Amino acid sequence: MTNTSKPRIGVIGTGGIGGFYGLMLQNSGLDVRFLVRSGQEELRRDGMSLRSESLGDIQHQVQVCSQVEELDGCDWILVSTKTTGNAEVARLLNRLPNPAVKVVLLQNGYGNEEQMRALVPAQMSLFAGLCFIQVRRTAPGQIWHQGGGAINIGYHSGAASAEQGAALAAELAELFAAAKVPSEVTDAELARWQKLVWNVPYNGLSVVLDANTSSMMDNPSCLALITDLMQEVVDAAATCGYVLPEKLMPAMLKSTRQMDNYYPSMHGDYTGGKTLELQAIYRAPLQAARTAGGDMPKVAMLLQQLEFIQARSELAISHEKPC
Amino acid sequence: MTNTSKPRIGVIGTGGIGGFYGLMLQNSGLDVRFLVRSGQEELRRDGMSLRSESLGDIQHQVQVCSQVEELDGCDWILVSTKTTGNAEVARLLNRLPNPAVKVVLLQNGYGNEEQMRALVPAQMSLFAGLCFIQVRRTAPGQIWHQGGGAINIGYHSGAASAEQGAALAAELAELFAAAKVPSEVTDAELARWQKLVWNVPYNGLSVVLDANTSSMMDNPSCLALITDLMQEVVDAAATCGYVLPEKLMPAMLKSTRQMDNYYPSMHGDYTGGKTLELQAIYRAPLQAARTAGGDMPKVAMLLQQLEFIQARSELAISHEKPC
Repeated sequence: MTNTSKPRIGVIGTGGIGGFYGLMLQNSGLDVRFLVRSGQEELRRDGMSLRSESLGDIQHQVQVCSQVEELDGCDWILVSTKTTGNAEVARLLNRLPNPAVKVVLLQNGYGNEEQMRALVPAQMSLFAGLCFIQVRRTAPGQIWHQGGGAINIGYHSGAASAEQGAALAAELAELFAAAKVPSEVTDAELARWQKLVWNVPYNGLSVVLDANTSSMMDNPSCLALITDLMQEVVDAAATCGYVLPEKLMPAMLKSTRQMDNYYPSMHGDYTGGKTLELQAIYRAPLQAARTAGGDMPKVAMLLQQLEFIQARSELAISHEKPC
Repeated sequence: MTNTSKPRIGVIGTGGIGGFYGLMLQNSGLDVRFLVRSGQEELRRDGMSLRSESLGDIQHQVQVCSQVEELDGCDWILVSTKTTGNAEVARLLNRLPNPAVKVVLLQNGYGNEEQMRALVPAQMSLFAGLCFIQVRRTAPGQIWHQGGGAINIGYHSGAASAEQGAALAAELAELFAAAKVPSEVTDAELARWQKLVWNVPYNGLSVVLDANTSSMMDNPSCLALITDLMQEVVDAAATCGYVLPEKLMPAMLKSTRQMDNYYPSMHGDYTGGKTLELQAIYRAPLQAARTAGGDMPKVAMLLQQLEFIQARSELAISHEKPC
């Protein structure tokens, strides 16, 4: 296989998610380019390494890009930045010389593609990538994979028809499968609701209670609250027309019980002083549920608490700056 | 006035509440006896002192008792311990030589008198004392009064009829009024719901969010949550047959806004490693509301979070102990 025949993948955002999937695809023989903001030097020098109990250790030198234009010619662009930076990501995507590219948002939350759709060229195809994984970047180029890895791909919008979009999603799913990443094609909207069932309770509660998954699952009251929050999301999804499988909640509770002291991504954002993804994970689905005539009182309360914590955190950071 | 003609007051629990009201009554000329567990030596040596911007500084030598039998002959016994210790308080009250005494529970929460009723002699009269005050014990015998002070007295049960009970409550209210403590007679049950409107949001959120009243009131999301929680309590009270005045919520929000960085008592219990009053402030009213056919989803969620925090705190304390 010559270099030109290989599908070329661009990755925007080289945290745990982007690092993991990009490195796995490169490991399977694809041409992967990482657009990197911080830690370029370390990445160029030391490459990227993955530490994983289930997959073993993987290490490669990687192609590091500092300008989005260097991603021109990529067949797929995986976006794994936080949703809080999506306006900036849209500005980057608009700078691509060839706008007819396939962009996959590997992000948590609701309404991300709709938001991005309004900001990028019509020829650009948007896909949702729903990742069921526990992964974290411990240092530039250092990825710690704690478990999971499956990724569901759904076509959202673009120049392709729904059928063409599904066919394209299947092509990407095959690339992932060949890279030892379980992947299937899904309805993007359905899959986003599905992921919210996990993200809504665990992300928010990990911040409010300063707790990891094990300690939350081990406490009967917290487990009951997690179940209540999940049920509210399942009910809201149904109100919006997306009936999730009945076995979803028990399956998620079971797989979470097997996670080893995992801190959800929002906890890392909080301790790292980053803006929390409240819009994508809480406000947008709450708005969708209310528009459809439903409500999620406990989810709403979790958002109210997170908004308080976020505001206090911002205040603390602003006080740290010299006047 | 000779010593024998003065009403004699016993105080069980000399924290902020018991210290404040006991000292104010003594300051007005009454014979007050404090049953004290810890800090007896300091109290006997230095007396008790009150620091207050609105009332000035007050200092007196006090009568310190180490056995409940020394409270025999008291006309009134004020109980200001945490509700979590009420079984122990009942054991003390049962040791009084004359059981026909009037006992006032100066405690937060719901169902306290019912619980105590089942544990003490029938001749003992029980009263609810609802304190609207910001006060704290900073050291043995050192009381810091931050604001408020009003106390509402309601007869609950005992040898007296409802009319006789109300007359007795009025006598105590007069003693308080003469001691510069605004006081009025009230329906005990109604007043307990009324106090819950304040205690439910501020106590629990101060622990979950590790925040004082000012920071909570200053944040729009937290203020909205406080209002939601208050409304749930008001609605639950109505479901249980107690219609609270419409102006109650705005009045409470206004007076709380005037408190200066006040940490509610549950926050002090939490940081002090004490058991939180979850039964009296959350479980009992939730149970009452559900029995009456109502629900308080956000209050229930706050309880779930507090139960998680309480359990973690107990675990941490048990780990501190040597094996």
